[in-house]
Amino acid sequence: METEHSLDKACYSASLSLRDIKITDDFWKNEMELVRREVIPYQWEALNDRVEGAPPSFCMRNFRVAGKLNREKREKGAAFEEPKYTFRGFETLPEDPEHLEDKFYGFVFQDSDFSKWIEAVGYSLTQHPDPELEKTADEAIDVVCAAQQEDGYLDTYYIINGRDKTFSNLRDHHELYCFGHLAEGAVAYYEATGKDKLLRAAQRFADYIAEYFGEEEGKCKGYPGHEIAEMALVRLYRATGETKYLKLSRFFVDERGKQPYYFDREHPEAVKKGEEKELRYQYHQAHLPVREQDEAVGHAVRAVYLYSGMADVAQLTGDDGLYHACETLWNNIVNEKMYITGGIGGTHVGEAFSYAYDLPNDTAYAETCASIGLVFFARRMLQMKPDSKYADVMERALYNGILSGMALDGKSFFYVNPLEVNPEACHKDERKFHVKPVRQKWFGCACCPPNLARLLSSIGSYAYTENKDTLFVHLYMGSVLTKKVAGQDVDVCIESDFPWNGNVKVRVRAKGSSFKLALRIPEWCGSYTVKGAETARTRTKDGYLYVEKDWEEEEVLELCFPMEVRLMAANANVREDIGRAAVTRGPIVYCLEEADNGKDLHLVSIDTASVSVSGPAVQDETVCQVPVKTIELPGFRQEKPEGQGLYIPWSAGQKKPVRLKLIPYYMWANRGENEMQVWTRAE
Amino acid sequence: METEHSLDKACYSASLSLRDIKITDDFWKNEMELVRREVIPYQWEALNDRVEGAPPSFCMRNFRVAGKLNREKREKGAAFEEPKYTFRGFETLPEDPEHLEDKFYGFVFQDSDFSKWIEAVGYSLTQHPDPELEKTADEAIDVVCAAQQEDGYLDTYYIINGRDKTFSNLRDHHELYCFGHLAEGAVAYYEATGKDKLLRAAQRFADYIAEYFGEEEGKCKGYPGHEIAEMALVRLYRATGETKYLKLSRFFVDERGKQPYYFDREHPEAVKKGEEKELRYQYHQAHLPVREQDEAVGHAVRAVYLYSGMADVAQLTGDDGLYHACETLWNNIVNEKMYITGGIGGTHVGEAFSYAYDLPNDTAYAETCASIGLVFFARRMLQMKPDSKYADVMERALYNGILSGMALDGKSFFYVNPLEVNPEACHKDERKFHVKPVRQKWFGCACCPPNLARLLSSIGSYAYTENKDTLFVHLYMGSVLTKKVAGQDVDVCIESDFPWNGNVKVRVRAKGSSFKLALRIPEWCGSYTVKGAETARTRTKDGYLYVEKDWEEEEVLELCFPMEVRLMAANANVREDIGRAAVTRGPIVYCLEEADNGKDLHLVSIDTASVSVSGPAVQDETVCQVPVKTIELPGFRQEKPEGQGLYIPWSAGQKKPVRLKLIPYYMWANRGENEMQVWTRAE
Repeated sequence: METEHSLDKACYSASLSLRDIKITDDFWKNEMELVRREVIPYQWEALNDRVEGAPPSFCMRNFRVAGKLNREKREKGAAFEEPKYTFRGFETLPEDPEHLEDKFYGFVFQDSDFSKWIEAVGYSLTQHPDPELEKTADEAIDVVCAAQQEDGYLDTYYIINGRDKTFSNLRDHHELYCFGHLAEGAVAYYEATGKDKLLRAAQRFADYIAEYFGEEEGKCKGYPGHEIAEMALVRLYRATGETKYLKLSRFFVDERGKQPYYFDREHPEAVKKGEEKELRYQYHQAHLPVREQDEAVGHAVRAVYLYSGMADVAQLTGDDGLYHACETLWNNIVNEKMYITGGIGGTHVGEAFSYAYDLPNDTAYAETCASIGLVFFARRMLQMKPDSKYADVMERALYNGILSGMALDGKSFFYVNPLEVNPEACHKDERKFHVKPVRQKWFGCACCPPNLARLLSSIGSYAYTENKDTLFVHLYMGSVLTKKVAGQDVDVCIESDFPWNGNVKVRVRAKGSSFKLALRIPEWCGSYTVKGAETARTRTKDGYLYVEKDWEEEEVLELCFPMEVRLMAANANVREDIGRAAVTRGPIVYCLEEADNGKDLHLVSIDTASVSVSGPAVQDETVCQVPVKTIELPGFRQEKPEGQGLYIPWSAGQKKPVRLKLIPYYMWANRGENEMQVWTRAE
Repeated sequence: METEHSLDKACYSASLSLRDIKITDDFWKNEMELVRREVIPYQWEALNDRVEGAPPSFCMRNFRVAGKLNREKREKGAAFEEPKYTFRGFETLPEDPEHLEDKFYGFVFQDSDFSKWIEAVGYSLTQHPDPELEKTADEAIDVVCAAQQEDGYLDTYYIINGRDKTFSNLRDHHELYCFGHLAEGAVAYYEATGKDKLLRAAQRFADYIAEYFGEEEGKCKGYPGHEIAEMALVRLYRATGETKYLKLSRFFVDERGKQPYYFDREHPEAVKKGEEKELRYQYHQAHLPVREQDEAVGHAVRAVYLYSGMADVAQLTGDDGLYHACETLWNNIVNEKMYITGGIGGTHVGEAFSYAYDLPNDTAYAETCASIGLVFFARRMLQMKPDSKYADVMERALYNGILSGMALDGKSFFYVNPLEVNPEACHKDERKFHVKPVRQKWFGCACCPPNLARLLSSIGSYAYTENKDTLFVHLYMGSVLTKKVAGQDVDVCIESDFPWNGNVKVRVRAKGSSFKLALRIPEWCGSYTVKGAETARTRTKDGYLYVEKDWEEEEVLELCFPMEVRLMAANANVREDIGRAAVTRGPIVYCLEEADNGKDLHLVSIDTASVSVSGPAVQDETVCQVPVKTIELPGFRQEKPEGQGLYIPWSAGQKKPVRLKLIPYYMWANRGENEMQVWTRAE
């Protein structure tokens, strides 16, 4: 007998190969093209220090220097003098930028820039073959592989600075993080091109790590300071079938938070200084064994990367306890710690989750990467349990707090995605210096743009999963799937105009097959209709419409998910949003911008009585040449008499009716520096 | 012909001697008694490192060590080896607290703790003679004076650490600040007791400083990093008639902000490092010559201390330009940068003024000392121009943002006076760690409690000023004034029940005299009545009612300033307060506390429609045995259904009617840790 909570493992599903998916969707195709045409080429230039005016990355240079050392070592043999490690800073900049030496430069995690790039390249090649790009990638891989040490080790920071301190600072020095990205990139490139040179290099590094770390006596009991290796090892396991990678991932997951704390053993000086242990450990999600953690805390990106790895291990090992820990953490995030945009991380202090319901709009961190990590986590939860609550959050993050990270022209980026911005505050108030009122070109610590690139290029793998008899459609985007489902050739073509209208056409060519199609019913639509399923066995479960039938030559299902404009409120525990409403339509969260509504957005309010009488108006427009549906609502604007003192007797009625115009949140800050707000006072 | 702005210098007024004033007022007498019975004795123990559990101050100890060095120097003569200066930290703590050496310990400005104490003692003795306390004070003065060097120098930090670096770090090392407090304390003690030992010591130090700094060729062109010497020198001038002190004060005022910046010359390494100059200089109000400054910026306490000094110099030198600079800065503060409580300093970053209208409630700094400095500034502006706008702010700060700094039992203190507190945030959110939800015993950096002590003990000098023919009553407090006005013996007795009701009785015994009485009309009363002035010549000007007559044997004026409960709004530019109202009555700002209104104060709102129909209820009650008028208002409390998700469709009407209970803001946090808010949503 199954317990109430244990999972039906027969339902476990997996992502489809990107090679079986062709994205045809106007909306996402456009985003992917931006990545292909703008981000990937720019990133390659950045990796090679060729961007005018931008600080050099040193990434590819470090690989070349490490490769040169490697060659010398091979040539000189025993005469080769290994560099002796000296700490030169978390970020090492050249003393004389004109005359670089054969040293390591950049952040300790600089290697990962290459790995993120090659991952995005891999995905992009599946959608848009490009021999030129593939050639560049192959050459880059040659450079990287030449840096690999004979024992498999491959992190240029220690190769150049001195291997004697390898794995001596797991808390801060990101070696296992760099490994994780390398493995992710290697698998992606292998799956896209079939070329396994980088995959083999990643495996050799993984083998080295698996020799060093593990539960066996004598092995190191450390775990990554910045998580990602957990999910990367699972991916490597899936790609190679090598179980030791899965085992190592589980070891990292289970070792975390055990007492005595590994990071204390590694940093006795920090213990001596009495640095506040609780916060330090929470930052790394290492304050408790992961199965005992019930609150999402600490650095938000690290947290969701860890939870993603936990979910991977839970799925592959059938570990219900670990699954429940994931479920608890998931619920904690979405019930107490997530912005309406899918942003996570309420405070810039430690780029971290704040306490429950603390979701300030104007000082938000809500890092693009953290929302991307939330999507990773969501997909893994979906793979274990097809429940639309995961896909709803995935959709929320994708269309809002993630897309907002990139300008409409693909040329500038936000790390931080606030829900309210007054540019004056960003310039004058040090408490808001982390909030930028316009997107920035590129960053020295380049995490968000490459992360966006790899996510958007692989968007198809979030839209669908499959198991032996069911094809799940989690996100509605125009695409053509050509593959075997339950042993039969199947061709599924989806046409959608998401996120602007909710009509979806699913054309199935699968004669002779009887697989199930599971179609997500979005949480934002009150009712929906489906045509063409009259001869099918249908049922709904956990937010999915299951359509099962013996498919004919070509069948068409027509779904309609009405996209009404909705006024949303936040839970009453969210102090910052009390008395305020946000406007959504379908999956899109809207915002007010100064460009459309004038200065001083705090003075406007939504006239809820009029909204419920006359309703909002939805219009087709363009913002920076991009077609979009805008919304107009009746509202008020409080008068601001000139020359008024600071405190005056209160009086009602100092407001005039106005029409408020809203655009999708993700499009904000594309028309110059201006005010923006998502949560508006509602009267 | 006078220009529009130039001042009528005949109107200039001065404070009364505290010896001519006897405070009889229940309200202020109680505060003064707390200072006398609690703060002054506690502070003396603290100065002598005798408070169990509190970190030692080392203040008197440093004076003793310096005195010992002095003796040795005298005894050894040329054989004495001067200590050679080495920087040991802005705060120096003993390596082994059990075995102290003959070294300087504590903050660089630790000497000022004594000076603030002796100042409060002086004032207190005028109101409450206490031979025991006076004896202790005299002995303390002996210790301090024994530390003075032969050349007049008197700062134990450099006496002990090495005189070779005297005045080498004006920006950070507070020598001139310590001097300023010493002079203030010395004058106060002299004026209270007639004893001039400390005054002479302060003069000798002032003479030394006047030799070192000044406009003359060859003298140092520096000025204080932390202002106070400017006003202290004026005070010393007033007490001694020695014009060089006034001249030095004017020099410090005028030198500030001149280019090239003195602090740059003093700290070439900071310039090299390229530390952001603008903010660094604004912090010290040294970004521009003071006459060109039109915005209050930087560290709020320093700013208002400077402006007070500027006002002093403007008055005594009849300098209209400087007066106008003061007036501009005053207007900037009260029109753009002051909390409704009279708090100033919107950000804890640099304990500073934020930009215009940035007055966040829950992250406010609003340091007690800054409001005290604002009162200093206000009185000086009043002395130049009897305009009630200055006295209104003085009253606002005194009854609200200053008194809130001390617990009702006089035993614990706030530095930071927020207008909204959620204790959970103070504990969990590093961005609010500066905000304490309960008052603290004492502080290592003990500025606010002693500052409160000196202000409250001398409250009478803020209530009244006089010029040759007019006695100004700025604040209404029970008191008896006995003095000569315009050459005649005058006895003025004021009875008032401020701040709880607005009836004031002014009994004048001044037969044969014909001086004017100028009575402030508080800005918070719409209309007022006066009885007993029927036979007088009366007129109102700049918020004062001038009553002029040939006084009879005994006459009584009865004033009535109705204290209505008022709902106040903030200027529409204050984003944090939009849609909110604050409740005031007379001079008192009210607040909601969790103790009276339950948790989650963000959920409550004021029902303004009902307030205007049924009105608020004012009740006599006690809070912690202290009598007080509380206010009840009709309001709403939004429901908080259990188990609700984070984002839900907006709906009106999820609120129930409640009675809101408000207590005076200054009384908050006397009943344990709980939520508090001043600005409440108004519907």
